[in-house]
Amino acid sequence: MNRQFLSELDQIKSQILTMGGCVEQALDHAIQALIHRQSHGFQSVHEIEKKINTDHKLVDEACLNFLAKQGPKAKDLRLIMSVIKINTDLERMGDQCVNIAYTGRDYFSRTALGELRDLELMSILVRKMVKDSLDAFVREDEKLAREILLMDDEVDRLKGKVFKDFTAHIQKSPQDAESALDVILIARNLERLGDHATNIAEDVIFVASGKDVRHGGDQQ
Amino acid sequence: MNRQFLSELDQIKSQILTMGGCVEQALDHAIQALIHRQSHGFQSVHEIEKKINTDHKLVDEACLNFLAKQGPKAKDLRLIMSVIKINTDLERMGDQCVNIAYTGRDYFSRTALGELRDLELMSILVRKMVKDSLDAFVREDEKLAREILLMDDEVDRLKGKVFKDFTAHIQKSPQDAESALDVILIARNLERLGDHATNIAEDVIFVASGKDVRHGGDQQ
Repeated sequence: MNRQFLSELDQIKSQILTMGGCVEQALDHAIQALIHRQSHGFQSVHEIEKKINTDHKLVDEACLNFLAKQGPKAKDLRLIMSVIKINTDLERMGDQCVNIAYTGRDYFSRTALGELRDLELMSILVRKMVKDSLDAFVREDEKLAREILLMDDEVDRLKGKVFKDFTAHIQKSPQDAESALDVILIARNLERLGDHATNIAEDVIFVASGKDVRHGGDQQ
Repeated sequence: MNRQFLSELDQIKSQILTMGGCVEQALDHAIQALIHRQSHGFQSVHEIEKKINTDHKLVDEACLNFLAKQGPKAKDLRLIMSVIKINTDLERMGDQCVNIAYTGRDYFSRTALGELRDLELMSILVRKMVKDSLDAFVREDEKLAREILLMDDEVDRLKGKVFKDFTAHIQKSPQDAESALDVILIARNLERLGDHATNIAEDVIFVASGKDVRHGGDQQ
């Protein structure tokens, strides 16, 4: 394994971390704008997403070149395969942040529905899942990755609660239908962000241990 | 390029087509069950999805082994990278079919909302996009892949219409809120299926031409 090999591998990991940092920023802007009703924050989400999309293509290109030139094996090959998938997840996470920004802007143009406590709780959890998934990736920390899988259950539970509460709200106050539907859609976006963080965690476990824990395939 | 190389590559392509066939079947069952109000069709969706999940892991394993042993270059390497991504898309398409099955079952337990004409139109389009994306993959047909990208715009338009119409319906008839929300969620699932077919089409263009047309990067 020569210096060129290690330097290119580090470069790819560092590109993923930069992209992950952008996703964290986009999510922060989207959530903060939503909670504090500051619609200018949504504009930043769109700007950051453009950078994520550019990086998305660059990372794929870097992986293709690395595979062609360096022919990595064993753990290094698992890492590159995982990077190809994590790259896709990060790009889709950017899309979800943009969806929150679009829906959030719609929401601000309608009747506010008071405190969105469960949505805020969901976003705190998802924010932590995203951060932890990137920390787990950089440290190849299988233990932390497994904790993310557990957090996802709580995100799913909260999404179910938001769906139920806001459907009931619509039935009681049909004039709020559009605002309530926005809240439901944002809960769905947050759930999807949690799913993507879970995918990254599963990839980290695969890189670190060689175990494919997807679809209940955990042998621990 | 030896016979072993070609045989393994064919095997991987054939695994993707089998998986794609399962996705088509799952989608058919979900849509037919929904339109003809036959909830037993939803059960088949769950059974097919289990097979998709098993294949998902097998395809990734086959790609990893192929990369490690055969060290493909140029177009063959682009094909394997695309297969890794298409594999993920197909698995997520299975998830979307399962989501339709769950929501469809809920929908049947509530007040029916009459003909779901736009949802049916969406499903016809999405069904064609999925079939065409797999045909384009097997034939490396860039032209067909480009047609899929255009169909996606119509799917998005119809989803917007379903969202608008059924939100208005909720405001007029709040007692139908749950059923109408089910329809909205199924429209979202169909839209996502269209997005995944679009991803596959973009990958086909990349394999065939080396051009990365994602994020508006089309140089044609």
